[in-house]
Amino acid sequence: MLLYESIAENILEMINNEKLPHGYQLETLEELAEHYQTSKNTIVRALENLEARGFIYQVRGSGSFVRRKKRNYHLNLLSNQGYRNSLRKFSSTSKFVKKEIMMAPEYVRRELDVESDEKIIYIERIRYIGNQSRTLSLEKSYYRQKIIKDIPVEAIESSIFAYIQDELGVEIGFSDVYLKADKLSKYDANLLELDVGDPVLIVEEVYHTKTGEPFDYTELVYNYQESFLYAQSSTYQD
Amino acid sequence: MLLYESIAENILEMINNEKLPHGYQLETLEELAEHYQTSKNTIVRALENLEARGFIYQVRGSGSFVRRKKRNYHLNLLSNQGYRNSLRKFSSTSKFVKKEIMMAPEYVRRELDVESDEKIIYIERIRYIGNQSRTLSLEKSYYRQKIIKDIPVEAIESSIFAYIQDELGVEIGFSDVYLKADKLSKYDANLLELDVGDPVLIVEEVYHTKTGEPFDYTELVYNYQESFLYAQSSTYQD
Repeated sequence: MLLYESIAENILEMINNEKLPHGYQLETLEELAEHYQTSKNTIVRALENLEARGFIYQVRGSGSFVRRKKRNYHLNLLSNQGYRNSLRKFSSTSKFVKKEIMMAPEYVRRELDVESDEKIIYIERIRYIGNQSRTLSLEKSYYRQKIIKDIPVEAIESSIFAYIQDELGVEIGFSDVYLKADKLSKYDANLLELDVGDPVLIVEEVYHTKTGEPFDYTELVYNYQESFLYAQSSTYQD
Repeated sequence: MLLYESIAENILEMINNEKLPHGYQLETLEELAEHYQTSKNTIVRALENLEARGFIYQVRGSGSFVRRKKRNYHLNLLSNQGYRNSLRKFSSTSKFVKKEIMMAPEYVRRELDVESDEKIIYIERIRYIGNQSRTLSLEKSYYRQKIIKDIPVEAIESSIFAYIQDELGVEIGFSDVYLKADKLSKYDANLLELDVGDPVLIVEEVYHTKTGEPFDYTELVYNYQESFLYAQSSTYQD
């Protein structure tokens, strides 16, 4: 982690702990540079990082302010880490449904940029809120076996991404995210304990390693009664 | 616009024009600094800006690369400008439905952080794909009259945000975005030419000015048959 990143994390922790509430004006560049014993330039980069991630906003000529926090029962759409953190707050559990080694279907090959003979680890699991009382989502994931050697059931029932990072040493980078609403299929309705034709929020994600290789295509099928997502856009968005 | 921002815009233009295709490795910091006649530090900021917005990824020790472009029929969830650009590609049109001056309902007051006696301009319009042949969405917007004096019907039928920026001089900043799927109500189904109970993707957005004042709460009710959204997350997301 670079210095500006660890300063950003430090400030973020204070925001998350509500030590810095909504609307709070951060110290000046000079004061922060003095406090962190670094250059103003490093502070500028830390603040830009926090602004781009939607945690603060900067008003030219007046300073930096803490943004409002999300409604607290929402899951962060764009954040692996935040998603896991949100799930922890919900005390979410996961149930293993299926694991298969297969060749990727054509639409998955296109998303993962792989040849037709490349092997895929296909995994299905259900996420619950609390102790399997209410379903949150059904996850259908296609991992490239070349990059993700194997995923044991214990990891599937806890955290696949923690396993991938901590055990396999694969660094997770950015993702592309697609959303739509649709009618629930019979198979999905059964697993989510809902009715066929009920509304469903479908989120597709293509995850890449830090070196830019796509390694996971996941379709998240959300229980519409339990799923509320949020995202924050920064001024920079085009 | 600061220098690093205009360099970022310049590179982005080449990405959007496909002059820099997916996977293309950008020049080194030294080469870019030489090309733009500026410091390496300014180039670093321009590249971080593009990375945070999901257009490039940086691999430590090897350089910066262009990310894959979104599927081309998707609307950018997090981008006002991009949303308008995407809509232009669809040759979208808007139809005025309703305009009322009112006190904000309680849930809107909470989102906009306003007192119960503050006046709101409530606007409803329908977005179409092409020439009113297929509905895309129903927009229900609550603008604070204190900030947004008035919005004429001509602006409602073209671009409200262009009017707000260009005519009223209000600078649009960041937004909070919430998503869910639900069943379509009778009123909304009628306007979207769909059936009651059909699935619906609902996106709520709270827009702020560049100085951090919330000025618009909008509920976007999407026709599930026509609406596909996307977002790109950067490595920085927490």
